[in-house]
Parts: sequence; structure tokens; C-alpha cells
Amino acid sequence: MDWTTASANKRSALDATIPPEWRLDVSWNDDPPMGFWAKSRVLTPKELTITEMPATLLVQELANGKLTAVAVTTAFCKRAALAHQLTNCLHEFFPDLAIAKARSLDEYFAKHKKVIGPLHGLPISLKDQARIKGVETSMGYVSWLDKKETEDSALTMLLEKAGAVLYVKTSVPQTLLCCETINNVFGRTINPRNRDWSCGGSSGGEGAIVAMRGSIIGVGTDLGGSIRVPAAFNSLFGLRPSHGRLPYAKLANTMEGQEAIHSVCGPICHSIPDMRLFVQSILSQNPWMYDSKVVPMPWRKHEEDAIKTKISSRSLTIGYYSCDGNVLPHPPILRAVEIVKRRLAKAGHMVVPWQPYKHAFAADLASRLCVADGGTEIFSNLRASGEPAIPNIDYLIRPEQPKMDVNELWNAQLQKWNYQNEYLEKIRCFEEKHGRELDAIIAPTSPYACVRHNKFNYYGYATVINVLDYTSVVIPVTFATKSIDRASYQFAPLSDLDRLVQAEYDPEAYHGAPAAVQVIGRRLTEERIMCIAEELVRLLRDD
Amino acid sequence: MDWTTASANKRSALDATIPPEWRLDVSWNDDPPMGFWAKSRVLTPKELTITEMPATLLVQELANGKLTAVAVTTAFCKRAALAHQLTNCLHEFFPDLAIAKARSLDEYFAKHKKVIGPLHGLPISLKDQARIKGVETSMGYVSWLDKKETEDSALTMLLEKAGAVLYVKTSVPQTLLCCETINNVFGRTINPRNRDWSCGGSSGGEGAIVAMRGSIIGVGTDLGGSIRVPAAFNSLFGLRPSHGRLPYAKLANTMEGQEAIHSVCGPICHSIPDMRLFVQSILSQNPWMYDSKVVPMPWRKHEEDAIKTKISSRSLTIGYYSCDGNVLPHPPILRAVEIVKRRLAKAGHMVVPWQPYKHAFAADLASRLCVADGGTEIFSNLRASGEPAIPNIDYLIRPEQPKMDVNELWNAQLQKWNYQNEYLEKIRCFEEKHGRELDAIIAPTSPYACVRHNKFNYYGYATVINVLDYTSVVIPVTFATKSIDRASYQFAPLSDLDRLVQAEYDPEAYHGAPAAVQVIGRRLTEERIMCIAEELVRLLRDD
Repeated sequence: MDWTTASANKRSALDATIPPEWRLDVSWNDDPPMGFWAKSRVLTPKELTITEMPATLLVQELANGKLTAVAVTTAFCKRAALAHQLTNCLHEFFPDLAIAKARSLDEYFAKHKKVIGPLHGLPISLKDQARIKGVETSMGYVSWLDKKETEDSALTMLLEKAGAVLYVKTSVPQTLLCCETINNVFGRTINPRNRDWSCGGSSGGEGAIVAMRGSIIGVGTDLGGSIRVPAAFNSLFGLRPSHGRLPYAKLANTMEGQEAIHSVCGPICHSIPDMRLFVQSILSQNPWMYDSKVVPMPWRKHEEDAIKTKISSRSLTIGYYSCDGNVLPHPPILRAVEIVKRRLAKAGHMVVPWQPYKHAFAADLASRLCVADGGTEIFSNLRASGEPAIPNIDYLIRPEQPKMDVNELWNAQLQKWNYQNEYLEKIRCFEEKHGRELDAIIAPTSPYACVRHNKFNYYGYATVINVLDYTSVVIPVTFATKSIDRASYQFAPLSDLDRLVQAEYDPEAYHGAPAAVQVIGRRLTEERIMCIAEELVRLLRDD
Repeated sequence: MDWTTASANKRSALDATIPPEWRLDVSWNDDPPMGFWAKSRVLTPKELTITEMPATLLVQELANGKLTAVAVTTAFCKRAALAHQLTNCLHEFFPDLAIAKARSLDEYFAKHKKVIGPLHGLPISLKDQARIKGVETSMGYVSWLDKKETEDSALTMLLEKAGAVLYVKTSVPQTLLCCETINNVFGRTINPRNRDWSCGGSSGGEGAIVAMRGSIIGVGTDLGGSIRVPAAFNSLFGLRPSHGRLPYAKLANTMEGQEAIHSVCGPICHSIPDMRLFVQSILSQNPWMYDSKVVPMPWRKHEEDAIKTKISSRSLTIGYYSCDGNVLPHPPILRAVEIVKRRLAKAGHMVVPWQPYKHAFAADLASRLCVADGGTEIFSNLRASGEPAIPNIDYLIRPEQPKMDVNELWNAQLQKWNYQNEYLEKIRCFEEKHGRELDAIIAPTSPYACVRHNKFNYYGYATVINVLDYTSVVIPVTFATKSIDRASYQFAPLSDLDRLVQAEYDPEAYHGAPAAVQVIGRRLTEERIMCIAEELVRLLRDD
């Protein structure tokens, strides 16, 4: 079968999973998807209320019997169906399986008068890398279509043990190596706020569905910004934990077995309490017994408490940078960093500029290490069906990036380790100089608030954090405002890439785009960084 | 310069570091080195006493001022000089630097009335991979001679910060990839108990010097048994921590940047309390701030306490295996496992056979992953001087092991992860079946009590643990006894390798060889496993 036919068949099959009564019942033209579903009558008022509640409240109401798993699951299935019709955010949709699972949870609850686990009855959306028995995992590759999984990913299994209900798998770009979301099977996923903007990527389907509240917590993965960019582009919260904190075993992936820079999985959601609920729910089930790469490190309350103490004594020490020295972010992002910095200082915390150390080197190292096979594996996936590569990955598979030799790979891995150790030395020097522990660094997640399609050209703000394997939490700060965020024409470009990125800024075109920052901590500092992020939200809200 | 001349020059230079008054003053013929030094008058009675004390007591006496750092350092320098003359265990000897350092510690103590750190004044020996400013690191490669280091390894720096005195670097085999100790620069290191037996390797110099009490705690490294085999062959304790527990940054290594199986560093010593002193002294200095690969995990007393509770309620659950299904250990080792098993059961703990899972596969995977470059890097080190390869590494650089392609490497790394996860599944099944947590597994460290030179042929008992990255503590159990440990001639070989290994057993030749076992725990379970090992020592002693 020709790849276009195979793709068309898959799209029809996906379309057929949406029952007629969940179809968008009002005509949709060029309006932004977000809010548009509200005009529809598919969701009942109660379903609307359910899908607007925080996850922490939903699990409470499920646990005290005020809500049933079937009611909650049905509400999110319906809203996910609408979100998909408006943004094209799904690869797989299986409401029948989900509602059957919800029914069995309700039966369990009725019989035992208690929940099965901390996520009892809560729908969780999964990026189309998670394997679920009986469901396909195509990752948008034509050649991977039509193969039903025979086993679950470790994370899938633990989520189900915790009582979560799985109901959708969300869209990704071909290869995953792109911060937009487009592939030859399903086409493009758009940004709920503006159809001309990307929803981000590679966990772009998650960004879109969570922003549309078709999901309350979604699971993404991040090898070079793929959780953080969609979170940022959709005014959401995203956690890129350090490698070894959450289980990745048996997730599908491109370049499986590549370990020089580990892809990690983490939540995209609406708040830090929801993020904490997700992380604690996984950690409470000893994920290190299911994935050898997970560090046996339960939730560390004392780490969180250490930050709480500093918060109450107004003695956090926060570094920040607006520019990595390679590419200057667009004005809304510069302003977002400035806002966070000002609020922190105003609250009495110590805010000190952080000098980015060799970020251009690290960004280059990341792209060399991630496609050390010169694209061999990617092309074999494409060749198997005859589908073409999406243009967005040109940067990866340029001819000057041949396959590395094992000794070259070892050398690059050694450079990575040395770089990580040099970065630690910079932190030690900072701490000695100031006589205080550095608690976090505030930085851009990408140079863009949002980007128009096919315009994402610089990954360095995200990928350097992957090279360092630092913990990072994305928080929404503000929105691009054309009257404030003017383009600067006096600008002297730092590099060719910088010129390209700057040229893309247009105050009119990006008006209203979400501007976020990432809160970065050393390796395996999730408890601390989430706690700092929560305080930042409070400071931003208070103003 | 010809490589033989360069080697001879280096040996002369090393020899010249031993002052005339520290020279062996009695003639030495074919007697075993161990105990022989006692006939010498180089050490004063007080120095003899000092070098026979546990490290935990030495640091106490140093901290309360009853011993000076100079006295302790001098005693160990002298005994190390004798140990070297008897076993050839040193690559570098720098007593002047050490005594100067000890003097400055004594001055600090006199002035501040307190120690500089938990190892104040304690000499620690280092395998010749640790870098010390101003000292050479040849690892036995001719081409690496004559280069003084310009910086310290992270571990060296942390040991010095803790107050340790560095005075020697100990011998290794060429390439480190061998469980005996021989190289073209320094020749062979012999076993203190019998000059015909290997001291083990690759941390063989540490095995010999610690057994001779020329060092009280030595630092080894372990990629495939290199801490555990020398500990076992010298009736000592050895810790192979999991990767990421102790800092390896800036240690010299062969195949630097190889990350598929991480070499780790750990102590070889005379007791579990000494081992704990070493580990706690490093962890108390936040090693994760100096080496990015170290997990931010301080000493976890609650983990130790969990085991103590099980010990006092006699409810440990211990698996064991005597044979990995590939090669049967020699009779003394089989007996050692049996002894441990019997003592545990007698004390009331649960002892259950553990079925080794695909160990032949994992042992093969280890050798494929460790020389994925087909020996390219090793040969470039050899070619640089013209020295030949030692015969012991033939197994590594056989022609059927060509350089791996990056995609083959990724595939092998994926196999490793899958294998690790399957092993976890076996543990979960075991725990479900027995309704109890598996606390540890007792197993052989190698098939041999000791081996005669050039006879170490099977690495699987050690390397599978490296593939799993499990924590392992070696404890001495007994000694080969010709009247008990008879060879079995009814034996049907499991494999060609098994036939080769069995043929080497000779009750007469191995009479008196130390027989040890390893106590294995899951990844990053150092506190628990050390605590179990300590209890085993108590049970073995009580009998």
C-alpha cells in the first residue's frame, strides 16, 4: 500500500472513534480553537465543570464519592474529542476502553469503599510513545501503523496501578526531534490560541489537549525541550525531571538505546499542585522496581521543606539569564525573565545574574550526540514506507553530520561529562563568592513566545539543560503584548542563527502569545524546583 | 627511546623513592610475602601496632591527639615500601609529599584543636588511575610515562579535603581489563599469600598492599570485577558501589567516555566499619557538587536501620546461587557459599535459591559493550611506545570482535536496559511468590579461590553484576583446604570454558587460598548491603 493511502486509512480510523454525538456541532472557521468548543453543546454543564477542576480536586471528589470515574472519564473523553476536532492533537482515541476501565474503578470503589490508588478515576493523556496493550503506537511513522502493542510501558502500568484512566495518545512530530508537531500520517497540530502558531513539540499534542482542558495532566517526553516548549507555548506548567527520576522503560522512541543524552518523561499540566500529585503518585509505587534506570529516591519532603524555610525567611538565592550569548530571545521572553526577577527581588530574595557557561558549545554537542548515527535509524523508518522527511528536521540530517565512529562517540561523551563538571565548578564558585547556596536559575525555555509554523530554528535554551541533565520546571509568566513588546531594530546579531530568529519577531503576529520561563535546578532537585516554581506563581499572582 | 629502556628507567626511578633504611633487611627467597616483612626490623614496634589497627580506631586516635599524622603516615609508608619489595604492588611512591602533608595536618590540629575532616591523618592508597597534581599516572602504559599531572581527580580532592594522606599509587594490569595484575613497565604483582597466585586485578596492587597492611584502606575501580576479585583473592572486604554513588570524575581510564557500562570506584579494606568510614567520609562532602554523575544521595541511615530491624527480628530474605549455569566455581567457592547459606539459615533468616537469569547472555554483552571500539583505543596506547599487549587480554581483542557501528552499540545498550528490567521483573516475581522483600543475593565473585598466573579465564560472576549495576560487597568466608575441597572428576562440563576452568583446580596448589562471596543488592543499596555484610561477618565469626 502506498504511504498516502496508509495514512489516509489511519486518519479515517481515528475519525471513526469519535461518536456522532461528540462531533463539533457548530461551524468552525478561522477563530482560535481555544474557547471555541464552549459554543458547542457536546459537554453538559456538569461536564464543563468537571473539566475545569484541578486534578488535585478531582481525585479528592473521586475519593469521597462525589464524582464517579465514569462521569469524569466521559467528560474528558468528550472534551478531548472536541479538542482534537479543533487542533488535531490525537493519534489514538479509545473512549470505550477508558469508560470500561472507569466503570471497573467505580465498582471497586462501591465494593471496597476506598480508592485503588492516588489517581483513582483520573484521566491522564499520553504522548504517542507510551505503549498500551491493544493500542497502536505509530509516533506518526507510516511504517509503524497497524501494529497493536502486546505489552505496557512501565509508566503506563504504574499509572493504571495508581488508578489513572488512559483514553488518548497525543500527537508528535515525525522523529520527535522537533519543537513543532507535524507528521505525514496525521498532519499538523495547531496552537489552541492561534491556528498560525505551533503548539510546540515534540509533546505538542499534549500541549494542545491540556491547554484545551481535554486533559488535566498529560505525559510528555523531553530530549531537547519537548516537554518544556509545548508547556511554554500553551501557557502551561511542564516538568523535565532529571534522568532517572520517572520511569521511561518500554516507551517507544526514535534512536532507542541512545544513552549519551537521555530522553526523560514528565507531566504537562495546569498547576504545580497537579504536577506534584502526578510525581508523588508515580514515586509512591517504587518505579525503580520497574525501570532499572530509575534512581531509588522516594519523594523527599525534607528537600521541599528546605526551600519552604528559605521562602519564609525570604532568603532564596536565584540566578537568571535572559540571553545565552548565542541567540537573543524575542521581546516578550526578555520581559518575562525581567518580571520574574523583579518579583523575586521585591519579595526580598537574592537575585543575581548567572553567566551562561559555553552554551553554544553544549547546544552543538547536544545535536551531535542525539543523531550520532547520522540519521540512519530515522531514514530506515522512513524508507520502510516511502514517506518523505518533514522539512523541520533538515537541521539534523544535513550531510555534514555523518555517522560517528565509536571512538568519536566516546570522545563526545567525555566532552559532555567534562562540561557537566565544569558547570558544577561554576556553581561552586558562585556559591563561594556569595556565601550562599544557588537555589535555582531562571532562564528562557526558547527564544520564542510562540512560533509560526516551520519557524522554530533554535533549540539551545532547552538542549543545554538536557546536556546538563538538570531539573527544569516551566511556568507561564505573561503574554506577548504588541504595545509593549516592540521589535528592536538597533539590534546587532550575535550569530547568523540570531539574525534568523530575530527576523521572525513581529509584535502584531505574536500578540497574545504565552511567555514562559524555566526554573532550573541541579540534577535530581525536583522537590526543590517545584517548590520554588510554586512560590514564583504566588509572587506573580500577588502583583 | 626504546620501550624497554623507558620501562627500566621508570622502575629505577620508583626504586629510588625507597630510602635505604626502608629496604628489606633480610633475605627473601621463595617464602610467601605475607608475614615475611615481620622478620624485618624496618618497622618499630609502635609502627607495627599502628599498621595493625583498624582505620576506625586510627582516626579516633588521630582525633584525640594520641597519634600524630606524621607517625601514622611514616608507619604506613615504611610498611608500603616493604609490601612493594615483597609483592611489587606500587607504581608511584611519594613518602616525602605524604609526610609533608601529615606534618601540615599535625600543625593544623595543634593550632585548631580539631581535625580537618573525618579522615584526618589517615593514609589512603590509590589505584594508579587517580590523578594527583605533580605525580605521574601511567596505568602501566609505557607511552603514558613521564607526564606529571596538573590537576587532581575529584576523589583525590575530596579525600584530601577529608584529611586523608596520599602516599602511593598501586599497580594495575595493562588496559585494566584483566583480573590479574601485570604490565610491561612494572611487571607482575604477586599474591601476598603465595607467589604463584595472582593478587587479582585490575585493582591488584590494592589487593596486595592492603593484605600486607601497607595500606589500611585502598581505592580500587571495578568495570568487571576489578575491586571484587582482588578483595576476594586477598581475604579482604571490597565494595563495588552502584554507578553514581562515589565520584569517578577525572580518574584516568582506558576507553574514557565509554558509558554503556560504567566503571565505578570503591574501597578495598579490612572490615565493614572501615568501609563505612570511607563511604561516609566521601558522602559527607557532597560529591555530587564535584562529579555530575554522582547522585545527590547522602548516607541514608534509615536504609541501614531497615536492615538492622530485620536482623534483630531474624527476618532477612536472602537468595543465593553457587553456579551461574555457565561455569561451575572451584570447590572452595562452592563451600564458601554453602557456609554462608548455612549460617544465615541457622540464625533464623530465610534463605532461598536464586535462579540466575540469562547470566551467559549478560556476560557476553558485557564483553561486547566494554570493547565496543574493537580495541582501537588500547592499541593506540600500545603503538605509541611499541610495547606488546599482555597475553591476558587476548580474549578482548580477538579478531571476531570488530569495532561496533553506532547503531549496533545503541542496540546493545537497549539489550542491556531490557535485560536489567527483566532482572527486576524476576525480583518482583520472587517477592510476590514469597510475600517478602529480597534483601540480598549471595554468590561467587569468580569461580576461583585464587588463580595461578595467567589462568584467569572467566569473568561472568563479576561482570553480570556490572551489567546490572548492582551494589556488591565482597566478604572473606574461609580458605581452601585440600582435605575438604577435593576436585570432582565425575564432572560433566557445562561449556568449553567450564572445562578449562575446572581443569585448573588442584587442591594441593590452591591449599590456603582465600574463598570469598559477594553480597549483592539492587542498584544504589550500599547502606543495606554493607549492613547485611556486617551481620554475615558476625554470623561467620560466632560459629
